[in-house]
Order: sequence, then C-alpha cells, then structure tokens
Amino acid sequence: MSPTAPAIAAQPPISRYPVPTLESLPDDLRERILAVQAKAGFVPNVFLALAHRPDECRAFFDYHDALMLRPSGLSKGEKEMIVVATSGANRCLYCVVAHGAILRIYEKSPLLADAVAINHRKAALTPRQHAMLDFALKVCGDSAAVDESDLDSLRRHGFSDEDIWDIGAIAAFFALSNRMANLTSMRPNDEFYLMGRVPKAK
Amino acid sequence: MSPTAPAIAAQPPISRYPVPTLESLPDDLRERILAVQAKAGFVPNVFLALAHRPDECRAFFDYHDALMLRPSGLSKGEKEMIVVATSGANRCLYCVVAHGAILRIYEKSPLLADAVAINHRKAALTPRQHAMLDFALKVCGDSAAVDESDLDSLRRHGFSDEDIWDIGAIAAFFALSNRMANLTSMRPNDEFYLMGRVPKAK
Amino acid sequence: MSPTAPAIAAQPPISRYPVPTLESLPDDLRERILAVQAKAGFVPNVFLALAHRPDECRAFFDYHDALMLRPSGLSKGEKEMIVVATSGANRCLYCVVAHGAILRIYEKSPLLADAVAINHRKAALTPRQHAMLDFALKVCGDSAAVDESDLDSLRRHGFSDEDIWDIGAIAAFFALSNRMANLTSMRPNDEFYLMGRVPKAK
Amino acid sequence: MSPTAPAIAAQPPISRYPVPTLESLPDDLRERILAVQAKAGFVPNVFLALAHRPDECRAFFDYHDALMLRPSGLSKGEKEMIVVATSGANRCLYCVVAHGAILRIYEKSPLLADAVAINHRKAALTPRQHAMLDFALKVCGDSAAVDESDLDSLRRHGFSDEDIWDIGAIAAFFALSNRMANLTSMRPNDEFYLMGRVPKAK
Amino acid sequence: MSPTAPAIAAQPPISRYPVPTLESLPDDLRERILAVQAKAGFVPNVFLALAHRPDECRAFFDYHDALMLRPSGLSKGEKEMIVVATSGANRCLYCVVAHGAILRIYEKSPLLADAVAINHRKAALTPRQHAMLDFALKVCGDSAAVDESDLDSLRRHGFSDEDIWDIGAIAAFFALSNRMANLTSMRPNDEFYLMGRVPKAK
Amino acid sequence: MSPTAPAIAAQPPISRYPVPTLESLPDDLRERILAVQAKAGFVPNVFLALAHRPDECRAFFDYHDALMLRPSGLSKGEKEMIVVATSGANRCLYCVVAHGAILRIYEKSPLLADAVAINHRKAALTPRQHAMLDFALKVCGDSAAVDESDLDSLRRHGFSDEDIWDIGAIAAFFALSNRMANLTSMRPNDEFYLMGRVPKAK
Repeated sequence: MSPTAPAIAAQPPISRYPVPTLESLPDDLRERILAVQAKAGFVPNVFLALAHRPDECRAFFDYHDALMLRPSGLSKGEKEMIVVATSGANRCLYCVVAHGAILRIYEKSPLLADAVAINHRKAALTPRQHAMLDFALKVCGDSAAVDESDLDSLRRHGFSDEDIWDIGAIAAFFALSNRMANLTSMRPNDEFYLMGRVPKAK
Repeated sequence: MSPTAPAIAAQPPISRYPVPTLESLPDDLRERILAVQAKAGFVPNVFLALAHRPDECRAFFDYHDALMLRPSGLSKGEKEMIVVATSGANRCLYCVVAHGAILRIYEKSPLLADAVAINHRKAALTPRQHAMLDFALKVCGDSAAVDESDLDSLRRHGFSDEDIWDIGAIAAFFALSNRMANLTSMRPNDEFYLMGRVPKAK
Repeated sequence: MSPTAPAIAAQPPISRYPVPTLESLPDDLRERILAVQAKAGFVPNVFLALAHRPDECRAFFDYHDALMLRPSGLSKGEKEMIVVATSGANRCLYCVVAHGAILRIYEKSPLLADAVAINHRKAALTPRQHAMLDFALKVCGDSAAVDESDLDSLRRHGFSDEDIWDIGAIAAFFALSNRMANLTSMRPNDEFYLMGRVPKAK
Repeated sequence: MSPTAPAIAAQPPISRYPVPTLESLPDDLRERILAVQAKAGFVPNVFLALAHRPDECRAFFDYHDALMLRPSGLSKGEKEMIVVATSGANRCLYCVVAHGAILRIYEKSPLLADAVAINHRKAALTPRQHAMLDFALKVCGDSAAVDESDLDSLRRHGFSDEDIWDIGAIAAFFALSNRMANLTSMRPNDEFYLMGRVPKAK
Repeated sequence: MSPTAPAIAAQPPISRYPVPTLESLPDDLRERILAVQAKAGFVPNVFLALAHRPDECRAFFDYHDALMLRPSGLSKGEKEMIVVATSGANRCLYCVVAHGAILRIYEKSPLLADAVAINHRKAALTPRQHAMLDFALKVCGDSAAVDESDLDSLRRHGFSDEDIWDIGAIAAFFALSNRMANLTSMRPNDEFYLMGRVPKAK
Repeated sequence: MSPTAPAIAAQPPISRYPVPTLESLPDDLRERILAVQAKAGFVPNVFLALAHRPDECRAFFDYHDALMLRPSGLSKGEKEMIVVATSGANRCLYCVVAHGAILRIYEKSPLLADAVAINHRKAALTPRQHAMLDFALKVCGDSAAVDESDLDSLRRHGFSDEDIWDIGAIAAFFALSNRMANLTSMRPNDEFYLMGRVPKAK
C-alpha cells in the first residue's frame, strides 16, 4: 500500500475469545474437525471459535447435523437458502459468507446467494421457495406471531408438516448461531468468499 | 361453567406436532426424561414436544446442560433471569412460565419473575444484574450491534469474559428455544404457574 | 438468605412520587378508597400513587368506572383481557399483575392471564375474543392505521359498534394508565400475584 | 371544480359514531360545552364526538382540565408543545390541528406548531424545552424504558419533580386522547386550521 | 414579549451550511432562481441552500422538473400529495411546509395538506388516491418489499405502469430531498405557512 | 441440471419496465453510456433501466457524477463504503452488488465489501471510517434525528463540514437510487459479482 493510501485496519482475529489449538481439544472434537478439514480443505472458523468451550461446541454441531443432514422434503440447497436469508436478516457476517458459499455450491449457482442474503424477493426462486423463506423470516423475526394460518399457507405449497418443522427449526437454530457469531465477533475464513463463484474449468 | 358464561375455548394440546409416548423413545432419552420427572414430579412439556425428533432433542438438552449447569460467575438464579427476560422479549409463553417458576425457586422470591418477564427495569435487582440483562436483551434483539464497548461496560460491573460468554450464549440458546416453542405452539405444564409463588409451610 | 447468596436489591417504594396517607385525602377520595379496601381486602397501590394529585385521581377513576362498569356486549372478563393484553404490549408491570389477577378471578381461570399478557395468540380464547384482542392491540400500538375495514372485521364477529367503542376505549384508557404507572414506577401490591391462581377449598 | 378535475371525496363526518345534539345532553355537559363555545366562538368537535357517551366525556374533560389548567412550572404554551409533539408522533390529525392552533395562540408564534408536530428538533425552542419534548416523546413511545436517569436529566434543566409529572402525564393523557380521536375518526373543525396563523390587524 | 414570558429561541438560519448570494451563482442557476422568484414572489429556501454546491443543485432541479413537470396520468395535485405524505413519514419540515402550500393551491383545498402530512387515511381522498399514497409510503419506508402484487393492486385502480413509475419515483426523489433538507437543517420560508390557507377575496 | 434437481426459476429481466436499445436513445445519453462501456467492458444495467426515461436518467447521472467525482476529503473508496453500507440497510441488491464490486477494486480488498454491506461493524475499517458509516446510516434510516451533535462527532474525527455534506449527500442520493432499483426490480449485471474478488495474475 502506498504511503498516501487511506489506512485500512488490519484483519481482526477469528474470535474475540481465545481460540484453541487442534492439539488441545478432546479427541472426538479434534477428529470431527479434521474430518471437515479433509473434506473442505480448510477448517471453518466456526469450529475453532466455538471449540473454546468443547461441551457447547459438541452439542452445537450435533444439533446442526441432526437438523441439516436428516432426510427432508427440502433439498440441501433449500436448507442453505433458509440459513442465508435469516442470517442476512440478523446481519451475521460469518453465516452469510460461509453458508452463502455452500449455497452457491449446492445450487451450482454463482449468483444466487447474494440475492438471498440481501433481499430474497429478488432471487430467482420458485414460488414455493419464496413461501419457504417468508416463513423462515417470520420465525426469525417475530416467531410469537406464527399461527396456524402460516402453516396452512405452506401446506398449500406442498410442504409437509415435517418440512415445516425443518424450515422453522433451521431458522431457530441459526437464530442461536448468528448470535454466537456476533457475540464472539467470528470472522469468516477468506476461502469462503470465492467458493462457488468461479465455474470450474473442465 | 354455567350455560350463560362466556365461552372459553378448550386447552390446546401441548404441541402442534405429534407427541411421543415415553415408551416409544430411545432408551437414553427416556431415562433422561424419567430422571427429570423424578426430580420435578412431572415431565415438563418441552421434553415431550421436542422428543418428536430424538436427535435434535438430545442435542438441545446437551447444549442446555452444557451451558446452564457449568460452573460460572453467574448464579443459577441469574442464569434464569436471562432466560426469563429474553423469553419475555420474544413473547414465548412456554419459557416465561416454565423458567419463571425456576427463577422464583432459585431466588426464593415469589414476585421476581413477573417483573423480569414484563419489564426488567422494574425488578428489584442489583445494578450488576440490570447490566447483565441489558446485554442479554441486546444479544436477543440486535446482536449485530454488539461491540467491544458493550463488553467493557460489563467488565466494569465485574463480569469476566467467560461470564460474558455465559450471558450472551444463554440469550442465544433461548433465541433458539423460544422459536421452537413458538413454532410448535408448546403449552406450559399447569404445574409451573404456581411453583415458587406460595411460601412453604414449615 | 445465606451470606454468600447473590445480593437482591430491596423492594422499591410503591411510587417514585410522594404517597399520601388516607387521612390527608379529600373526603370523597378517601371514602372511595375505603370502599375498594372493604371489597378487596387491601388498597391497590394505583389509588395511593395517583392520589398524590387528587383532581387527576378522581377523574382517572371516574373515567375507569364509566368505561369498565357500564353495561356492554363484552363480559367483565373480556374487558380485563383487553387490559391485560395491551398492558403486556406496553410492558406495564403494575397493570399486567393487578388486572391479570382480576382476569383470573372473573374467568375463574388460573392460567389464562399469563398467556394473554405474554402472547395472546397462545391463550385458550374463542375466535371472537382473538379478534377483539387483535383490534385492541392495533389501537394500542398503531391507532393511526385503524380504518373502516377493522370495524367491519369486528362486526363480522358479532360486535356492535358500541362494543367496538368499548374495545378501543379500554385500549385507549390503559394507554394512559400504563404510561402513568411507568412514569411513577408504580409497584403492584404483593397480594395481586397470587389472586385467582389457587382454587378455593370448598 | 371543472368536470375533468380529479375527484376529491367529500368531507367526512366529524365522528364515525353518532353525534348528539346539544339539546340531548345532560345539563352539566351542555353548559360546559356552551361555555367553551362562548369563549372560542365555536364548539370543538372533540366535545361533540366524545359526548356520545356523557359519563366518559365528563371524566375526560375533568382529567384534561385538572392537568392542563393547574398551576405548573410549565407555561401554558409549553404544555401545548407536549400535546402537539406527542400527537404528531401518534399521527393524530385532530389533536395536531386543534392543539397546534392553541399553541400558536399561546406562544404568539404563527410558525411554531408545524415544526413541533413534524420534527420538534427543527423548532425554535430552548434547550430546556427540547429536553421536555424528548422526555414527553419517550413517555409517548416507550414508557417502559423510562428510568431515574431520564428524571435526572430533566432536573438538570431545572424541572421540579412536579413539572416532570406534568410532562409525563400530559403525554399519557394524550396517548388516550389521540387513540380516541383515531378510533372515532374525529375531524378537526375547519376553524382551527387558520387560528393563530394570521397576525391580528391593530 | 414580557420579561417573564418563557424564552423562545431565535429563528435558525435557512441552512446549516453557507448560503450563497444570487450574484455569486453561475448564470444559469441565477436565472433559474430568478424565474422562480418572478413566479412565486420569493425565492424558496431550498434553492439557496442547495446552491451551496451548484453542480449538485442543477442536477437536483433537473431531476425534479423532469419528474414533476412531465405529462402524467397523475394530476399536479396528486403528485404533491405524494410529496407531502412521504415527507410527513420522513419528518421533513421543509418539504411538508413548502409542498403542503403547493398542494393546497393546486387542489384549491385549504385543509387537505395537513391531513395528508399527518395521517393520509384521514384525508378526504378517493380510493384511487389512497392506493396511490399507500404505495408511495411503501416505496418510502420499505422499498425492498415492493413486489408485483403491489403493482397489480395499483393497476386495478386504473394506474398505468408509467403512472406507477411516477408514484414510485416521486417517493424516491423526495427520499433524497427530505434527507438533504434534514442534513442541512433547511428552514421553510415563512411565506409557505399561510399560502393556500386563506380563500382569495373576489 | 438433472431432472430431479429442485427447479430454480429463470433469471428475471434487468428491469420490470421496458429497456431501450442504445440506438433508440438521445445522442448524449448513448455517448455517455458507450463511454462507460468502453471503460468497464460492459454496460451496467442501471444505465439501461433508467434510460427508459431519458430526462430523469440524465439528471440522475449528472447528480451522481457531481457528487461522486468531485474532489473531497473522502477517498473514492470511502465514498463507495457509504454506498454499500446504506444500500445494505435498504436491502438494495443492485447497489450492493454493483458498488460492492467498485469498492473491492478501489480498496484493492477482495473481502471488504461483504462486511460493509452485511454489518459494517465487522469490517476492517479505521475508527474514522466507522464514524463516517454510522453517520451515513443515520441519514439513511432516520435523517430527522440528525442534529448538531452528530456533526460535532464527525468533526472530532477530522471531517470538514464539506466532507460531512459528502457523507450525508451520498447517503441521500442512494436513498433515491436504492428506491429506483427496488421499484424497477433492477438486476445486477453478472459481471459485478466476481469483480475485484480474484487477485490479478502478474
């Protein structure tokens, strides 16, 4: 940077709180994280930031996996749409960037995640997916107002009651996740920003 | 009820979703619930409502216990103050009623929980506890605005950084919990309403 | 309380402002208050707190009685539902606690008031009563948006135009009452918390 | 209006509800209204609209007079500033127009009321008066958040505790008044719009 | 004013920023302003306040004229209704007062502008005009939520798509204008307050 | 996409409104657009969408250039930070994506724009830049509350009054721009999404 360029502050740490080394973690957590690293090529910062408290971290990812990996009437991409839209509403940088990357990859759509995060009405989605996100954002922002008419509206779009639990529970789980990311000032890994944006050469 | 009395609708079920019998649950969950029943004298509806999905239920209570039972600079009563205040802000009937009962018992204070739920500023708390609840309500309502100055303010009241994690993480966990209760329209057990309100005879 | 228990601040006074003795009040106010005491068994703090200014106090209770005691298409319990729901929305501890007690007694329903205060959608009410509270909360929170379509919706539930005045005027009167309680930091009498919660032995 | 001009709907009635004739009113109310007419030159619509229910009407004006006419550390103009600012926040057309007229007359200031109604920060007021309106607007919009620090701030501007009651109680009373005007769709008298805007010829 | 009257602060300047003399302005801007002065009888302060930056000022009035003077399915009065309603929502004193005056003159209606600014629901307008203002206020307050159903609703009231652009673009342009007026603390000319309020003698 | 993949709707058009061909435009607009194309390598959709109305389009870009290209105490990158942060608050997809690209390029910082759009508190900026964005967001969201204390706070960070005009006026201009983009449902060019994210090979 030239001496006259406007000063930009240095990158912040990945968490406000102490970040453990992999070596210092309980075996099960370390193995879980190494498995993610083997698959993704890097360790997403959320694992390291939350591993500051191993018991809470373990329960967090158990909950995440139980909800996000179970068979569902929602596709894996649709689940990530919910994460990205509600994380955008909660202004959670970590989850918008990290799950935006996953959404681009699942949907093979390099442009989709930004629209879902900024204003889902502008995203190229089906009416069913728009209804899904409208409900997710209601659970996110005013869950006390959810009533039977909301469920009926989703049922008319073909969602089963188990699908509706999935939509609401993902919005609910990321209400927790977004708040933990904002509490710890969690920083997204640099890798996420570009993932799924550049079509792979053949 | 006399024929001319205003009609009151019947009590709703304890959840919008199917509620499993204890017998149908995996052994570990059933034993966990029976242990609660042995201690409390009844099974809090949150266990049965969430047990509709055993994997998510197990992770939910693992997270809850990891956070609420760990040693902390916060007393058990103070942790419940956070639950009650943020659940009030989220207008979550189940958590206000159930955790209000627990708060009354822990603090041996039959009048405290209503004030904490309705308007914590009117509760007879210490300045340190008021600062704790102000922060919890910020994490609850606008976690994106949390910054270092909020933490400094808590440190001046004597909270350690681990205590601050506890405050924020309890607010975050009940952001999830309140949304699940509102999604499933979870009904509080009748027993909670009166618990801790009547001084025990000696 | 043990010496190591967390400190809980003492009960605050019943009002931020000076509270008159019954003896010092004008005869008509004193007699009015003694009549309430004879009926209720104690003097609700709102009388003493507002009696700091006898002229305003007298007009306040004249208004209250004109509105709450007149014959109406609403039952006495339904009028109290409006008070409790709008006072919950305004986070007014005094009115939620005091009128919650009255609501429990009128409806002979020990569990109803908490739901009405925290989230009326979860209360076991009839559709007509839910419509009544939806309108009351609109007058409470955004009266400028009230229009003819709101009245039509209530008429379809069988409310007369005079009933609609009752609903709106109760919401309006407690908009005043809640603000006076919050301005004076009015404390509910201890007696209210338990009233109507315990079924009477026969 | 030319036949091609865009149609403008006719003036609405002065209230959604039946408006009594003066002759049909109880003697005391009729005399009270005739006294206002003798002084103002016309009958403000609020009297006729609220006289639909004489008992509530009587209590309303008793409260109004007890509060607005009592000796105070606030000038009569300052009391009207509070009415106009909070009625603007509540988007109450009747009170902004009627009390805007009174404010212009009391302050002999033809331009003041519009600024107070639209954005009090732009009104040519003293810092003490701005602090008064800031507090009134807090009681108007979020009375549950009022605490001792608000009162201390007003005391530093020289307000006594009785003055603070006046400020808060006027904001509280017009919270009621604004809601009744919006409920009944009360129409301001044409006379108010121009009152105090034109300097009197000498 | 008597020595004991409450002090009222002096009128503020017409802008927080330096206000140029007409002589110091570029020829084209000066001539444009003189033409307005010749027509209106005075120079509206917005010209002088924005002329602090001639290039931005020129573009501002080019935009204004392109939008407000073009032939349209909206009458000139209806365009001003949009300005007044959205400026009221943005609490912009300058635009409410100045464009309120223009609205009164265009509609030959001395009472209309106050209702449009304070609560357009109370203004004596046609259903088509109410729909127009509902949409303008949505563009003003939450443009991200605008979708095709809003446009369909306007089309059912007979608005063409070009009319809808006019409604939305006027709301958008005054979103800019209101913010510049609030940024510079622009003061309305005294002349505007009375314009159109007094029927002309014949 | 495989036949069983969840259906994703097709890309929407670049505007809800008719989009002119370059050939059909007035000479000056066409030349202006061709000059942008020569520099950027493509025609940003905002030019084509707004060119539906050439007079408004011309004034729009005159205003934009007068404000964004003038010499200033703000760097070009800082001006774009204001655009991106306020467009994020307004949930304007077009401006977040297009100006996010420009911000990345000006600041040579591939990760900066996402943080500025989602939650500027998490962006690696200087305290002076954070104060700049706090003020821009106040002008964006509640310009009526801007007062002298806001300006003083910026002056303490070294901003001149002309710099403050720049900050506020950019927030004001994009209040217009965001609303036009949301009104026309403007679609960002695909090119913007990746610009500035990939370091150039040498």
